[in-house]
Amino acid sequence: MSFIETIAAKRDGRVNTKEQLKALAKGAADGTIPDYQLSAWLMAAFIKGLNPQETADLTLAMAHSGERLDLSGLPKPWLDKHSTGGVGDKTTLVVLPILAACGVTMVKMSGRGLGITGGTIDKLESIPGFRTDLTPEEMVAQAKRIGIALSGQTPRLAPADKALYALRDVTGTVASIPLITASILSKKIAGGADTVVLDVKCGSGAFMKTLPEAQALARSLVDTGKLCGLKISAVITDMDEPLGLAVGNALEVEEAVSVLSQPEAMLPRPTRRFRSLCIELAGHALEVVGRGDRVTAEESLESAAFAKFREWVSAQGGRLGEGAGQVTHTTVTHMGDSGWVERIDAAAIGQLVVDMGGGRKEKDDTIDPSVGLLLLVNVGDEVEADMPLARIVHRPGQDVSLAEAAVRAAVIVSPRRSQPSTTILDTVH
Amino acid sequence: MSFIETIAAKRDGRVNTKEQLKALAKGAADGTIPDYQLSAWLMAAFIKGLNPQETADLTLAMAHSGERLDLSGLPKPWLDKHSTGGVGDKTTLVVLPILAACGVTMVKMSGRGLGITGGTIDKLESIPGFRTDLTPEEMVAQAKRIGIALSGQTPRLAPADKALYALRDVTGTVASIPLITASILSKKIAGGADTVVLDVKCGSGAFMKTLPEAQALARSLVDTGKLCGLKISAVITDMDEPLGLAVGNALEVEEAVSVLSQPEAMLPRPTRRFRSLCIELAGHALEVVGRGDRVTAEESLESAAFAKFREWVSAQGGRLGEGAGQVTHTTVTHMGDSGWVERIDAAAIGQLVVDMGGGRKEKDDTIDPSVGLLLLVNVGDEVEADMPLARIVHRPGQDVSLAEAAVRAAVIVSPRRSQPSTTILDTVH
Repeated sequence: MSFIETIAAKRDGRVNTKEQLKALAKGAADGTIPDYQLSAWLMAAFIKGLNPQETADLTLAMAHSGERLDLSGLPKPWLDKHSTGGVGDKTTLVVLPILAACGVTMVKMSGRGLGITGGTIDKLESIPGFRTDLTPEEMVAQAKRIGIALSGQTPRLAPADKALYALRDVTGTVASIPLITASILSKKIAGGADTVVLDVKCGSGAFMKTLPEAQALARSLVDTGKLCGLKISAVITDMDEPLGLAVGNALEVEEAVSVLSQPEAMLPRPTRRFRSLCIELAGHALEVVGRGDRVTAEESLESAAFAKFREWVSAQGGRLGEGAGQVTHTTVTHMGDSGWVERIDAAAIGQLVVDMGGGRKEKDDTIDPSVGLLLLVNVGDEVEADMPLARIVHRPGQDVSLAEAAVRAAVIVSPRRSQPSTTILDTVH
Repeated sequence: MSFIETIAAKRDGRVNTKEQLKALAKGAADGTIPDYQLSAWLMAAFIKGLNPQETADLTLAMAHSGERLDLSGLPKPWLDKHSTGGVGDKTTLVVLPILAACGVTMVKMSGRGLGITGGTIDKLESIPGFRTDLTPEEMVAQAKRIGIALSGQTPRLAPADKALYALRDVTGTVASIPLITASILSKKIAGGADTVVLDVKCGSGAFMKTLPEAQALARSLVDTGKLCGLKISAVITDMDEPLGLAVGNALEVEEAVSVLSQPEAMLPRPTRRFRSLCIELAGHALEVVGRGDRVTAEESLESAAFAKFREWVSAQGGRLGEGAGQVTHTTVTHMGDSGWVERIDAAAIGQLVVDMGGGRKEKDDTIDPSVGLLLLVNVGDEVEADMPLARIVHRPGQDVSLAEAAVRAAVIVSPRRSQPSTTILDTVH
């Protein structure tokens, strides 16, 4: 059976068999199928699509293309929480300790950021000493000891995904729902999870810009996950305005710590919106595994989660509270008439932080973890002239005039009263 | 401008600009666009298509991706004759000398055979000593001296086509009319032609199996050629039964020599059918360049063409009449009731010769030029039991039992009277 037949079938809109997709994943993982053939198949799959069974077959083939984490010695339930990524999305840093403190075993691999959406690994690496290169054995041992482990992707798990993702990135074949689905879920299955809660982001600061697009992705993830034998559900959450106060790696860690360590009333309004989303997501996860609900989640956040967070950071070598270098603030004020914040363009805010050096344009860029933005308003807030809209956190001497203009352009103030935006847009089971 | 944008535009069914296609051809030729990106674009182009302007832009970009033959010192008209390939198609060996003997400058690059359709280069290489690796300078000098030159493809002309063709072959993207069109015409333009006559083969022994498919390819070639500034027309000819008596490299050269050297009445019936097609094609070409018609072509064939052929072979180092090794014949007879030949499956005959070692299955296979098949009947012939249908020409000791069975299966005899098949199916201007 030649791989050209697999390509030709997909090119002509025919179904690829389980055996063909297994051979594809194996050949992608071990390099025996050349990149130019894989990319021809990827383009055919992008245009012609994969049906639910093909998506599940590809997912399992990719999941089994390398080693799998064996969590069998760890207390159940084993849960993996995954976000499709958004601007200011530091949810994982809060939700994982909440759930681990409730006795749920949280083992997770995360990615680095590319473009406007930051990656959890980059955020955690802004904590001096934090190791994100745990081996599979170290992850299992740590999860056994403290109930939580998070690492960057290792080539030992789902190597087919690594190969295919790298190709998709350079061949215009990223934005395919079946290919995204197989990429996400293959890593979850290789990581040993039996239950997955997905946070599908929706809006200008996310990959899926509209609710129907986000619903289609959530539906594909949930249906494919079930075909693969997972307990799985998805929450679609707003990413039209940035999530929380902070955008930028070290700033986001600080904001997560403030949510974990401070009473709600002490938090600024954008951070309270972020806190509420964390509780909703953690509550949803607890319901899925039968360990409680949003009330349980909030109790965990207010009692045990911060200790669990510190235990986690310390287990991976991180030293909280050590700064990542000298920074200064420039405050951006509102220059027009008073009114209400109608919109905050999350994509523009994300791009601004990338442009300041806080994110990657190319895969091998180094990032400056210290820089970023603190948004002082939410959609629905009333603002007056000269009121601060945001603080730009930057290196002393760094020119932020473009960033100031970008913030002003991104925060749309209208004379009409506007409403705070919803955080949870839909749930898909 | 990144090549990913070019891929994404085609993926989404948008038009690629002339500049994008120029950059594509340049990057394919000099290797700066990686194969995996080219193959993603090829698959997108295969599925979404190219419009006539894009096809012409791609053709010219590929034609200009390397050197071009400069025929400016040679007598006009300059004509290139191209066949899309079929089983037993040795037309070039006869048509080129007919036309050159009429004062038309014939400069041509040909390919090797792959699969069931043989290549002119392989046929000529069965003549001991015949050189098919002329440099561009040698081609021009020879054409100036004797009015005819034919060589294998050189990487100096249309290198983008070489790179793209190699990728199409291994990525399931061969059968695309716009890509076939650009591949064929880019080499003609790089070869300096200003007039092109195309022989688009149609039937089981050709790439295009049905008349509508062949018409679509002919239309694309003619329309694109005109957009590129060529004088161009296409003749669609039958390839449902093999062309002529001989299939196999040395045997086909012998048959061409018999057409050039013997009076029509001396030739066996299948060879007369081949001779008639040569005269039709050469006559069509003479009309296109205003140098005569089929009568002129036949006069040339009967007077000057053989001398021109010998001059050509000798100019390229070939020694006619030297055998290519010891062979023997096995005659296949008709075993059933008497009747009429309803069909001769050209694809099966072509495959049989490949299987005997006379063609290539893989690009790097070596071929045995001596082996092949002599078909002794045409569609429409009456046959009786024990009448010979074909002679298998093979190495002494070679097992031809499968070949005998294949010949009997390929020659369909019916109790109903059948008509000889037409050779010219359509002409596209």
